[in-house]
Formats: sequence, C-alpha cells, structure tokens
Amino acid sequence: MVQSDEVEFDAARADAARGDRVPRLVVIGGDAAGMSAASQARRRLGPDELEIVAFERGTATSYSACGIPYWISGMVDERDELIARHPQEFRDRQSIDVQLRHEVVAIDLGARSVTVRDLDADEERDEPYDQLLIATGATPARPDVPGIDAQGVFGVQTLDDGQRVLDALTDRSPRTAVVVGAGYIGIEMAEAMIERGLDVHVVEFGPQPMRTVDADMGEQIAEAMSGMGIHLHLDTAVQGIETGADGWVRAVTTDAGELACDLVVLGTGARPAGGLGRDAGLQVGSSGGIVTDPRQRTSDPYVFAAGDCTETFHRVSRRSVAIALGTIANKQGRVAGINLGGGYATFPGVLGTAVTKVCGLEIGRTGLGEIEAREAGFEPIVEVVRSTTRAHYYPGAGWITVKVIAERGTGRLLGAQIVGAEGGAKRIDVFATALWNQMTVEDLLNVDLSYAPPFSPVWDPVLIAARKSWQQVEAERC
Amino acid sequence: MVQSDEVEFDAARADAARGDRVPRLVVIGGDAAGMSAASQARRRLGPDELEIVAFERGTATSYSACGIPYWISGMVDERDELIARHPQEFRDRQSIDVQLRHEVVAIDLGARSVTVRDLDADEERDEPYDQLLIATGATPARPDVPGIDAQGVFGVQTLDDGQRVLDALTDRSPRTAVVVGAGYIGIEMAEAMIERGLDVHVVEFGPQPMRTVDADMGEQIAEAMSGMGIHLHLDTAVQGIETGADGWVRAVTTDAGELACDLVVLGTGARPAGGLGRDAGLQVGSSGGIVTDPRQRTSDPYVFAAGDCTETFHRVSRRSVAIALGTIANKQGRVAGINLGGGYATFPGVLGTAVTKVCGLEIGRTGLGEIEAREAGFEPIVEVVRSTTRAHYYPGAGWITVKVIAERGTGRLLGAQIVGAEGGAKRIDVFATALWNQMTVEDLLNVDLSYAPPFSPVWDPVLIAARKSWQQVEAERC
Repeated sequence: MVQSDEVEFDAARADAARGDRVPRLVVIGGDAAGMSAASQARRRLGPDELEIVAFERGTATSYSACGIPYWISGMVDERDELIARHPQEFRDRQSIDVQLRHEVVAIDLGARSVTVRDLDADEERDEPYDQLLIATGATPARPDVPGIDAQGVFGVQTLDDGQRVLDALTDRSPRTAVVVGAGYIGIEMAEAMIERGLDVHVVEFGPQPMRTVDADMGEQIAEAMSGMGIHLHLDTAVQGIETGADGWVRAVTTDAGELACDLVVLGTGARPAGGLGRDAGLQVGSSGGIVTDPRQRTSDPYVFAAGDCTETFHRVSRRSVAIALGTIANKQGRVAGINLGGGYATFPGVLGTAVTKVCGLEIGRTGLGEIEAREAGFEPIVEVVRSTTRAHYYPGAGWITVKVIAERGTGRLLGAQIVGAEGGAKRIDVFATALWNQMTVEDLLNVDLSYAPPFSPVWDPVLIAARKSWQQVEAERC
Repeated sequence: MVQSDEVEFDAARADAARGDRVPRLVVIGGDAAGMSAASQARRRLGPDELEIVAFERGTATSYSACGIPYWISGMVDERDELIARHPQEFRDRQSIDVQLRHEVVAIDLGARSVTVRDLDADEERDEPYDQLLIATGATPARPDVPGIDAQGVFGVQTLDDGQRVLDALTDRSPRTAVVVGAGYIGIEMAEAMIERGLDVHVVEFGPQPMRTVDADMGEQIAEAMSGMGIHLHLDTAVQGIETGADGWVRAVTTDAGELACDLVVLGTGARPAGGLGRDAGLQVGSSGGIVTDPRQRTSDPYVFAAGDCTETFHRVSRRSVAIALGTIANKQGRVAGINLGGGYATFPGVLGTAVTKVCGLEIGRTGLGEIEAREAGFEPIVEVVRSTTRAHYYPGAGWITVKVIAERGTGRLLGAQIVGAEGGAKRIDVFATALWNQMTVEDLLNVDLSYAPPFSPVWDPVLIAARKSWQQVEAERC
C-alpha cells in the first residue's frame, strides 16, 4: 500500500519530467496551511525541481486571523502587523508565485487542473497541476434566518472582513452592536466592541457562553462578561435581521424580543470550506471537511489538503473532528509540505487545545470536557480545584479554577479546563502534553514541574488538581 | 523481597500492638517533607491507630523558605504570610503533636529511639518510635574561610534566618551588602537588598551567575543583574571575612581584592542535612544525602527519609542527585506518609526543574544542560531560538530565548532552558512533562499546545525550539 502510493507520488513528478518541464504544485489558499506547505516543499525542492504557485482569493497571505479582534479593538494599530509574510517575500526569497484576488472555483481531478477566477479582471482560466494542495480554510457559519446577508452584518474570518468592520465603525459611528454566538470569536469581538465604546449584546442559542468548556466554567465567563457591561442573552435564538430604509441592519429579532442595533457580528463559529474538494469528488466527512490520511493526502493521490478545510483525528475521543485553529493549520501545512517536497511526515492528530483571554479572564481547555467524555464512551471522574496563580502571599496572585476529567478505574487523563486570572491559563499546555502521552492523573501528580513564588504555589494548581483527581479515582474503586 | 519488607513494616505496628499501646511515628523536621508525610499518614490512620509527634528545632512549621527573599525585600509584609500551617492547626485538626524548638540530636536505630534537646529548657530526653521519618532539610553551604561565622554573616534557609537579616537591616541600617554565590537564592537576595536601598556586590566563584543554566543563558542573567545596578564579580573566590572592633563584618576579602560591606548573605547553595542519619548508621550518598528506595525507606526498615536531606533519582541522567526544592520535598513527604500510613506509593524521581524571576528576567530549566548531558554520557544536539512571549503584534510581547538539548541520533529530549520576559519561563513545565515521558523533539513539535495572541505566537516558542532541534537532529544524521 505504502509502496504503491509512493509510486503514484513519484508518478506525478515523473509525468511532468517526461513532458520535459518542471513539475508544478498548485496551492489553493494563501494562509497558514497553504503557505506553510509551500515553504516546506520549497525547502526540499528548488525552483528547477518544483514550480509552486498559490492562489489566494483575498488580499493578503499568511496573516493572523486570531489577531483580528485586537485590531478592531484598537489594541493593534495596523492591519500589516497581523501579516507574517507578504506575497513579494514568498516570490523573492522562495520563488513561490502567489496570486492574490484569484479564487479557485473548480478542480478537475481527471485533467489535473483547476479553474481560477481572477476577481479583479473578472476572468476565468484553467491552470494545470501535477500536485495540488487544498487549504481553503473555514467559512463562518451564517445562521439561516431572513436578512442575514443584509448590510451591516459581518463575519470576522479574514483580514478583509476585519477591514469591513473597521470601515463600518468609522463611516457609520454605530452605538449598539449585537454579536451572534458566544464562542471564542464572539466574546473577543464583544470585548473589542466594548472597547470601541459601543453598547454590546451577545445572543447565544445555548445555555452558556463558550460551549467548548463545561457549564461550571462557562458560568465564570458569563459573570466576567456581565462585569464588563456586556448584555448576555443565553438560551436565545436569532430569528431574523431587520434593516432600515437604507438597507442597513437596524435590529436583530430573537425569540425573546427585538434588539435594536447598528451593527451585527457573527461569532457563530466556522465550518470547513470543503465544498471545492467535495464538488470535485474528494471524500469529505460529516462536518464537510476533507478527509485525509496522516500524511495529509486526500482520496485522490495527487491532491493533499491541510488546515481548517479538513477533518482530523482527535487523539482522546479517537473520532474525526473539524477544528479551525491556526496552530493545527500550521502543523498540518508543514506535514503536507514535507510530503509534497518528497519527504516523509505524518500529522499525529489533535487534542482540541485552546486558550483565550476575555473580559479579564484567561480560559484554557484541552482534551474532552465532562459531557464530551461521556459522549465518547468514557465514564469520567471530575475534579474541580480552586487555587492561586502565584504563591498566595506573592503580589498579584489571582484565583485559578482547574477542572480535571479522568477515566474511572484507570485514572487516565481525558481532559482539563482552566479559568483564571492572568498567568493562569497557559498551564493548559502541561495538561495537553500529559494527554498527548496518555498519562494517568497519578503519573501527572508527581511530575517535576517548576515552582517559585512569582509563578505558582509550591504544588502547582495543575498538580493539585491531578492529586485530588487521583484521590477520587482511588476512592471510586473501593 | 517486597513481601519480607511488608512484614517488617507491619512488625513495627505489631510490636506496638503487642505492648498494648498505639504505635508511634516520630517525625524529625516540621517543614514541607515532614509535615506532608505526617498529614498523609494521618489521613490513613486515626489517632487510635497511630500517634504522630513531630520535632522541629525552629519556631515555625510548614513555611515557604522560597518566599524569604520577598519577605526581606518588603514585597511580602509579614512572616506569617509565609507560613502555610501552624502547629496548633496540626494539633487541633489532625492530632499531630508538633514540638517547636526541639532538636533531635541523635537516633538510636537499635533501641528505636531519638534523643531530643528542648532548646528553650536546655534539656535532653529520649523519645521512642515505632516508625521514624527524617526530614531534616538542608544546611547552607558555608565557605570554609576565616571569619565565616562572624556576626553579620547570614544564611537564608529558615524563617529564623530571614528574621535575623531583617533585624540587621533595621538595627544597623547597612549601606552595602555582599552576597556570596550567584545561585537562585544569591540573586534573589541581591535583588531584595537592592530593593532595600543597599549597594550590592555579588561574588561568584564560577564564570557565570546561576550555574544551573548554560553559559549562554547565564550571560543574559549577568546583563540583567548589571542593569539593575548589582556589582557582579565572577571568577572570584572569597578568602575571608573581616570584622570590625565590635565583631561585626566590615569587609569580604577575595582573590580580586577587598569589598567593604556591612552585611554578608550566603547564597552558596545548600547541602543535604543527612548527618543525623549518617551518624546513626543509615546509608548516605556522596552528597551526604540519605539514600532511600522509591517508597522513601532508608537502609533501616523502620526509618523513612524525605525532602532536602535525601538523595533522589534523576530521570534523565539516571544518577542520584541532591536537589533542595520544596516541590520535591512535598511530593516525597506525600509518598513517605502514604507508606507510613499503611498505603503504597513510590516517588518516581526528578528532572531538576526550576524557575525563578530575577532582575526582571524569568529563568527556567529542566533536565540536563549541555555540559551535564555530556557528563551523563549523551552526545547532545543543541538548539537556541529567540521568539516572543506573545504574538509579536500583541501589546506586552517580550523576548524569550529557548534552548533545547536533544540526543543525537534519536532526537530524544534531554533538557531545556528558558530565559525571557514576563510570561516566558513557566513554559518550562511543558518541557518537563515532555521529558517525563521521554519524548523526542519530533514528537514534541507536533503537540497540540494552546495559542491565542495574548499568550504566544502561533508556533509557541517551545514548539519552534523543538522543530528546529529536530531539523538539526535530522541534518546530523545525513
């Protein structure tokens, strides 16, 4: 199997060589996954061995989408600060031809070509490939309600989206914003709008903000949001968007009444933009994300996929998941690029680790939550401890809540969640590393973690949580 | 073997039971290891099953020795803030009889008794035990030079030491201090003295401050010390302490000249206080620390030892080491207490993880340094990367240097060191957890660590260092 695949890979380059030309890698999407892959492939193969062209429908490459809320809040001054590398740098330093404002609208797997639309010239053309990487990212989930496409309703997925929000803030001086959805982006955007002086309502369909953490942790987040003056409407469904005479949004209607507003931000999460691959005949999963093997190869031997547009393997639940995060996109892009460049690398999966800072709270999570663990078939033992971010006597010590989910019987760590003051949440990485290695909470409680009063109590909150979790696992055995 | 040991343990309690009395655990030393053990034993056995008495020669139990520099600097107001639990609490809540100002001066293994000196009454008496825990801690290494015992020369090992320094600051209004030794405590004390308005000299025998990190990292620390106005004298040996007519220190003489001063602080590290055990006939190691098995049992079946007074197993070098740290003492105390209470637990060893914050720098280390790795028989591949503590565009982003030591060939992680701005060094815990699991840098570079702009770049500095280290390991193979 591996051997025959290898032959197929080499075949792509061999085919090209027979035609007496340099083989050609086409990359669809010029952000984290796409450009990481292009760079890695280039590290291994020079311009005389592999031509690389990347099509990006937006106006920038390799930018930090996660930075957009901070740009909108004014904490980051310039759009350019969010851009890690410009097309010219890819061209000059790595001979990677990046074509902005070029959208790939179709893939012909049989002919090995893509149809590209030049958005500025409004023209389409076909471009051949020997190898293809799909890195089309994610698209914001837009609630299917009347008026959702009205003027004044914004996603915040791309730099161009961010620019549109900033333009609206400048041009229309809005006073009230409604954020739909209280996930990471929704809350970050709500905070950004507060900082811009707006009155902010957040409408969330579910019973808590940030459904990626458990209800008890979500409560603390809801409190912090209220403390910042954000009006949080939980268990509330958006029914429609009302517009004024000028076609601009004037209110959001919900099942709990109407919220007048001058601006709507969609923080309802994102879905894998796998449609292009699916329409071409590639296998996609239930999330709509493109299915790949560990080398990031799709069901077509000449086509790879990486980043938000794919499904990936969750190491704890052992299920396919679609998680739109730059960290994963970068790592998958690296793996795809090494393989496209003739090397060998595999992507070992994810843990669902995430961290954010909203309304003065730090929030981290990794692995499975309490309910997720049950859904995945585990019987969880749950422990929640409250400790301090520094030695209790050290100035600046703040509270931190650590929740540990372990497997009954074995004590195997299944997940962890942290909500706390500054200096708290990045500890989630210790849990992530422990999860990665399938540690039990008994193993974990003894790990030689660092300590000094400015950094933690002598038993780090991570270890306290592991220790108490282990006590519970032991007690449940009796 | 295990079986016969079990018989011996049970024998201790059986002997007592035959005598129609409650068996008695004597604990020598009332700080982290001793009181953790006492508490754990009490959790398992009630007062009618086990009598527990602890002798502490000082005036406090369970205090944070690591907090002393912050108390001296004035950052922590009260001595009491450093005390986690008072003798009365142990007595009232756990029926543990703590006797302060009682120093155990001898152990008779054959008679199973200790000789205790009541320091206030200046009387000695014998106390029997069925089980004994030695937790005598560490003693500051005092350079063997003339005048070292002069008035005005202070160690900073115990709360009582700290009180003496504070008294000297109040009573004598010193203007210049010399700190001998530029280890953690030395530098923290130097900073504390600067904050108390003194002119501070640090005399270090070696070529760099903080010899627990490599020379390249030490350079950054030296710069930060100088930047704070600390006069750092490297490669300089103390030859003697000069005193004035009143017997108080007036200068430190070194091989590079004399340094006039009003106060001397010893930051020359500490050695295991294993003498009491050694004199009784217990096996000690080359460091002078008491040798124990993984259950914290000494060479005598009725005697356990835990904390700074012991030697322990280094999981990377596989050697016996003596490391005086509260984290280790607490964990070993817990293990000893579970076993003394009739349970089963083992201490799995250490990594030499440590963190500190001095002169505005955060410093972390775990595992083996470059030279230590060679000494332990490894051929190290060394990678140093410079990155930022947050996304480069996020306000407050500072520099961070991460050094990774990996094994040639396998790429197995051997150690890591971090020097950086606020929010940098606690990442050392990710390396520690990776080391604990014997990960390779290739494994590590893919771990699903958290990311958001307020916390790190999209590739966390830990992952960048692992990735570059792996590139080097791969390149060295070719």
